[in-house]
Amino acid sequence: MSTERGAGPVPMVSPQPFFRSRWVPTPAHVRELGTDAGLPAGFRAAGVAAGLKASGDPDVGMLVCDVQEPVSAARFTATGTPAAPVLVSRERCRLGALRVVLANAGCANAATGRRGLDDAAKTQGAAAAATGVDPSEVVLASTGAISHFLPVDAVVKGILQARSRLHQRGDAEFQRAIQTTDAFEKRANLEVELPSGPVRLSAQCKGAGMISPRFATMLCFLQTDAALAAETADLLLGVCVKRSFDRASVDGQLSTNDTAVLMCSGSSGVTVAPESEDELRLGEALDALLRQLAIMMVADGEGAGRIARVAVRGGCPESVEVAARAVANSPLVKAALHGGDPNWGRIVQAVGGALGGGGSGHPPLAVDVTIEGINVCSEGAAIPFDEQALAQVVQRDEVEYEVGLSGEGAETEVFFSDLSHEYVTINADYTT
Amino acid sequence: MSTERGAGPVPMVSPQPFFRSRWVPTPAHVRELGTDAGLPAGFRAAGVAAGLKASGDPDVGMLVCDVQEPVSAARFTATGTPAAPVLVSRERCRLGALRVVLANAGCANAATGRRGLDDAAKTQGAAAAATGVDPSEVVLASTGAISHFLPVDAVVKGILQARSRLHQRGDAEFQRAIQTTDAFEKRANLEVELPSGPVRLSAQCKGAGMISPRFATMLCFLQTDAALAAETADLLLGVCVKRSFDRASVDGQLSTNDTAVLMCSGSSGVTVAPESEDELRLGEALDALLRQLAIMMVADGEGAGRIARVAVRGGCPESVEVAARAVANSPLVKAALHGGDPNWGRIVQAVGGALGGGGSGHPPLAVDVTIEGINVCSEGAAIPFDEQALAQVVQRDEVEYEVGLSGEGAETEVFFSDLSHEYVTINADYTT
Repeated sequence: MSTERGAGPVPMVSPQPFFRSRWVPTPAHVRELGTDAGLPAGFRAAGVAAGLKASGDPDVGMLVCDVQEPVSAARFTATGTPAAPVLVSRERCRLGALRVVLANAGCANAATGRRGLDDAAKTQGAAAAATGVDPSEVVLASTGAISHFLPVDAVVKGILQARSRLHQRGDAEFQRAIQTTDAFEKRANLEVELPSGPVRLSAQCKGAGMISPRFATMLCFLQTDAALAAETADLLLGVCVKRSFDRASVDGQLSTNDTAVLMCSGSSGVTVAPESEDELRLGEALDALLRQLAIMMVADGEGAGRIARVAVRGGCPESVEVAARAVANSPLVKAALHGGDPNWGRIVQAVGGALGGGGSGHPPLAVDVTIEGINVCSEGAAIPFDEQALAQVVQRDEVEYEVGLSGEGAETEVFFSDLSHEYVTINADYTT
Repeated sequence: MSTERGAGPVPMVSPQPFFRSRWVPTPAHVRELGTDAGLPAGFRAAGVAAGLKASGDPDVGMLVCDVQEPVSAARFTATGTPAAPVLVSRERCRLGALRVVLANAGCANAATGRRGLDDAAKTQGAAAAATGVDPSEVVLASTGAISHFLPVDAVVKGILQARSRLHQRGDAEFQRAIQTTDAFEKRANLEVELPSGPVRLSAQCKGAGMISPRFATMLCFLQTDAALAAETADLLLGVCVKRSFDRASVDGQLSTNDTAVLMCSGSSGVTVAPESEDELRLGEALDALLRQLAIMMVADGEGAGRIARVAVRGGCPESVEVAARAVANSPLVKAALHGGDPNWGRIVQAVGGALGGGGSGHPPLAVDVTIEGINVCSEGAAIPFDEQALAQVVQRDEVEYEVGLSGEGAETEVFFSDLSHEYVTINADYTT
């Protein structure tokens, strides 16, 4: 049935399943379509090589929604030094009614001041003119090295070239145009069975380094042909981003350019009313989609060989958050994860170092640590366990750490990657 | 004149100067003695191999003050999961009147619970019995892998062996016994010319990984033959630790075992009165000593090839602290430092990510960045600069970053090391 809204026959299953992590169960009402299934009805995209990447790979992407009154929602980085495209998008766009995405890789247009804002505005205007929309309907997203000025002429040429290439199956080349150090694509085409009828949901996402989004994400573009009110789109995107990209960390580094955009064409004719069963089901699908994308970003963390999930329970909302991020961002924990080293003492150290409070007169934190179900530390102290079994489970591709704090107030999780030689190699020589 | 309190002729200059960083000017009234100058009068030390290190290197160190009523001061880690030796020392010792240091490498005795406390107490008792002091006069310090139990019998044998080897020139072997992954020793013997007469000041210090002390340090033992009141010793140690070890970070990881101890024998006959010129001068010497030791810890940071100082000015005390630590602990900044890559955009990113506050309606942070005197970013935006000159200065052994924030409220600094392949290698396979 998706072919009614797609662009030809759709393969039933992609070569490798999109939902591939044990940490993201696929909702029963969600079906994976192939990577060449095309975008939901009402959307077209293109990606072209405009010369921003030295490699000659695609680097300017454009995605348009062809309906007159689309609905959208967006989230941006929480950094204090947002890039020009973030500032322009946030301040000049009708974020609830976006019609065009203009994205580029190869230059972040960050730390570029007044000129960076002017450059961003010029490309926004060019994309608006090329697609016949108002500039306020064009959201901008850039990624690449910070501090370089945007080559505006090249981007404008890319826009004109991309306009002539827009097509419903353009999501693959759009995806390539937004990638930087990504080793594999993070893209999905799903069909979601709602009580009111089937809808399509697609995503294109990039992110491999400088990943610790906090209330935003790296670049992620989402499209659906469901009809949503702007408030519903904003609510769903906000909740799902908090449960996915906000829980992912490659290196604890918040980017200047994080952007997530959900666009809804309504072309399926299926309307998702607020607080309906449709909204619940679509939310579940979006949630699974974004969590899998977040885990894929972590798995594609620069140089990543192994990924982990740390779940922290007990304490209070603030303490579980601090503890989980401390473990996820500890270079010692991450290096041990890389080496498959069962050095769980570093988890205790990371939690204790971050939470502090162990000064004179205070009892030490009663931290519990469990790795892949093997309890190794109870109330802050080592306990007997099967060392051979532990040595084996820490060699898995995905390793799960559970940390317990005193009390029972809260619970959170963070997905993270290891710290490898390749991360150092990639980042020791990025600009030169 | 130091030979009066030393143990034989003292070479005037050590082979490599102790004060070797441009960031620590040597006070005019401080003279470096040789590494074999021996401890200040009233102190003896020893280090023996007790089998805690698989390498067979020295791993149990003992240092005693031979006067009846010495004065001392101590600082410990601020972690919420302090190691057993920290808990026992903090809660059972007369920290203002310590006479013996018992230190070991090869086992941190951390995350070892009740048994760890009992083990620590046993070794404290053994050291007290071996040296004829009260257990409350024996401070404990351990370093090594977290989560392993202390081999008490081996440590006790080491104590007995060390007792028979105690001598005034034992600081070199004591130093070896407290080292773990340290690549070079961090040890000094100084003479300080005070208005009331010359005194000696010695230090033995270890630290290479899990370094981000915050209000404490890794293991550092300091001795002087000056006579100080306990309050003066505590004040001087507290102030100098805050300006040195608290400003150093290898990997942003607060240890479970950080300990700094200053012991004063008074054997020189020179009394340092509170608020005197003597106190000022001794404080200057201690300050320079601890800052150089902190920089040496960073330079010996696991796998370190290049070190840096980030100075942040403007803002408020909290914001400069957060910004400086964010830069110092950013794996992206550290990897660029490693590669000699002039990727200054990451400094803006690290500051913006840590300070946040760039949400809708807020102006971006007006961050200034200067590297080795070359101003590359003004009010958050790139400015023209000599790129070739920048590419050269970031290849130096010591690189200085200056960050300016809006306002003029505060100033701080952090010394840090780079992120190298060797750090990953060392920490991916530490316990196995």
